[in-house]
Amino acid sequence: MNETTNLSVKAAQAIILQHVKALAVETVGLEAALGRVLAELIRANRDQPPSDVSAMDGFALRSADLLREPGAAPARLTVVEDIMAGDRPVKTVLPGQCARIMTGAPVPMGADAVIRVEDTRSLAEDMVEIGRPVDVGNDIRPRGDAMRQGEVVLTAGTEITSGVVPVLATVKCAQVRVYRQPRVAILATGNELEALSAAFDPEKIPDSNSYALMAQAQELGLEPVLLGIARDDAQELAQFLRRGLDYDVLLVSGGSSVGVHDHVRPTLAELGVTMHFWRVEMRPGHPVAFGTTDRSLVFALPGNPVSSMVCFEQFVLPALRRMMGNRRLFRRTLTATLAHPLKARPGRTEFVRVVLTRGAGREDSPAWVAASTGNQSSGALLSMAQADALLVVPAACAGLAAGATATVVLLDGGAFQSEPGFEE
Amino acid sequence: MNETTNLSVKAAQAIILQHVKALAVETVGLEAALGRVLAELIRANRDQPPSDVSAMDGFALRSADLLREPGAAPARLTVVEDIMAGDRPVKTVLPGQCARIMTGAPVPMGADAVIRVEDTRSLAEDMVEIGRPVDVGNDIRPRGDAMRQGEVVLTAGTEITSGVVPVLATVKCAQVRVYRQPRVAILATGNELEALSAAFDPEKIPDSNSYALMAQAQELGLEPVLLGIARDDAQELAQFLRRGLDYDVLLVSGGSSVGVHDHVRPTLAELGVTMHFWRVEMRPGHPVAFGTTDRSLVFALPGNPVSSMVCFEQFVLPALRRMMGNRRLFRRTLTATLAHPLKARPGRTEFVRVVLTRGAGREDSPAWVAASTGNQSSGALLSMAQADALLVVPAACAGLAAGATATVVLLDGGAFQSEPGFEE
Repeated sequence: MNETTNLSVKAAQAIILQHVKALAVETVGLEAALGRVLAELIRANRDQPPSDVSAMDGFALRSADLLREPGAAPARLTVVEDIMAGDRPVKTVLPGQCARIMTGAPVPMGADAVIRVEDTRSLAEDMVEIGRPVDVGNDIRPRGDAMRQGEVVLTAGTEITSGVVPVLATVKCAQVRVYRQPRVAILATGNELEALSAAFDPEKIPDSNSYALMAQAQELGLEPVLLGIARDDAQELAQFLRRGLDYDVLLVSGGSSVGVHDHVRPTLAELGVTMHFWRVEMRPGHPVAFGTTDRSLVFALPGNPVSSMVCFEQFVLPALRRMMGNRRLFRRTLTATLAHPLKARPGRTEFVRVVLTRGAGREDSPAWVAASTGNQSSGALLSMAQADALLVVPAACAGLAAGATATVVLLDGGAFQSEPGFEE
Repeated sequence: MNETTNLSVKAAQAIILQHVKALAVETVGLEAALGRVLAELIRANRDQPPSDVSAMDGFALRSADLLREPGAAPARLTVVEDIMAGDRPVKTVLPGQCARIMTGAPVPMGADAVIRVEDTRSLAEDMVEIGRPVDVGNDIRPRGDAMRQGEVVLTAGTEITSGVVPVLATVKCAQVRVYRQPRVAILATGNELEALSAAFDPEKIPDSNSYALMAQAQELGLEPVLLGIARDDAQELAQFLRRGLDYDVLLVSGGSSVGVHDHVRPTLAELGVTMHFWRVEMRPGHPVAFGTTDRSLVFALPGNPVSSMVCFEQFVLPALRRMMGNRRLFRRTLTATLAHPLKARPGRTEFVRVVLTRGAGREDSPAWVAASTGNQSSGALLSMAQADALLVVPAACAGLAAGATATVVLLDGGAFQSEPGFEE
């Protein structure tokens, strides 16, 4: 256990990831596979396309027929067959002949190139005029161009994105072996908390952390369970924590700081949880703890809503993604310039909630500009609702000037923007 | 209808968005609200925090008690009460006194500042020594700091991210008014297609487009319906299309090009679909069409798998997001440098599938480097499975040099990366 040393965010992430591996494997239908991670290697079960096919709507022909003296009249070819995708051509294309062919349709015997319909002129139902030559193989997709039978098309550990799903469909994987998803339990602690379903009490603090953590886990495609609110009572807390340790991951918010009334710490120890650290040199989120049993991970997150969310982003998210079998554990970062100066207290890595806008108001500007969402108090929940990203201020840094460059970590709500964002 | 002019991607997007508005409003539980868009304005129903509370575990005291001559002995204060979060303090802090206080607990009468426990020394159970002064208000979160009763905290049109969910919980919105989600139907066309459930036929082309489009719609949180495969037969096609027009959005893949066997175009016209364009100056994806009825949008997407997916990204996605009530319709873009030269045919905006890696192999480098996934044929499905992003080559551009800067549009699978990506 690392009680006193100054643990950096990355060092804490590394400690956590040492204790995490992908969960067991299960089978799901392809319609439910998006966002899961492949636990098997997938080979092509066919050549794709199954034969040489046309890449265009046009005419399949013998390229030699189009090689004419400069200044000669255009070639005229007789159309001997119409070939649609799914057809099997019956005729061989002989010199002076061609076949009308659709995109994806098999190229007939005799033909060695395709010319697209836009480059031809129809003279009659069975006669077409072509004024320019084409190379052998022009606009033909050769057999096996997309995949060859037996070839490895996907490896275990591949995240099943929308680009992967059609590959699985192509090799007829209606059922897919994937890593099981972690079961996540969420527990709030504190006498001051009011449950969402409880009557309104103006002196209480509504339990928002349970719902923030729920939504953060849902963003990853998980179905977390809310255990409720444990009061500051050792016995009640032990009961709740014991229940939470039945899950793969237990998230406890509140009660992890150093005050005398903190029951979480001794109770976790009594329940056999080995704690690996209790704090990290970050702001917000300083009092964050991580422990393990032989079957569960436990994160004790700060009671402040924003601190709790930032700690989820930095510590819980990579752990959950690794359990899900992912190789990419961290949210995408990009570089932005600061819209205004930013003060920081050196000593801890600081995560500043920011909104991203286009540089100089130009939608096609490549530069992202980051501006603080305002009140950066760790209780300022609205700032997290407005944020597109977390801007990282390194621990050694006492502040950044307007126009300075900084790394921002995109939040899920930062995945979309108002404008297409490119020049045509 | 815009049959012949050269329609750019952005112009096509603009035409589509003229015909799209947010759908009707419905009510969902907070546990099912993530990713939906608020259709109501939300005001705070309470001051949050409900009173001045401590921001730290420490001692609430009178700041004047700590103002001592330079060189004087540290102040010693008598601890008169322990205040936990959720407690109501009963004593007033008098000169020479303090109260032990937990994070989030109400500041007692008489006290005007908090000092954190780390800056104090305990002399006895009821006596604490403090060597430094604090300002009035130190480490106190004033009443209403996070939100004030009656204040607008969220506006209609706000996407319900994980940062928004806890705000809704705080104001006790267990039920939320959101825009309805579009019902999406997906139809594949073509005699050459083999259904996922059909027996393997080495000469057929497996229907991958239906599953690609399914997954792309699922990525947006929708539950699309697969109508199946319509053969190249006018009557069968009409039957399928009529069924598809019962949905908010109908996606038809294949059959939209200019070949003589194309039934989609006349059949859509017969069914009363007004077509707004039939092609866009882009690569891949040239033959893409958009039409409307009084209640449905129809997208006729190319039969090539990659073309179909890129057209979904550029045209269907922003339309669906607007129907869902979103203000941000487009995927996030970032700037990357090219790992290698890239040839392009001028005349059409080109979308190149790329993988993103860190510049110079340094995980903390701010620069993203884009490299082609290889085979950029529109039939090369694997390239889409591997892609993190689509790199945009402007239409006027005949190629880009290695090291050139370009805009890339992040795909959903590009939302995560292998390393934290920031310097601490």
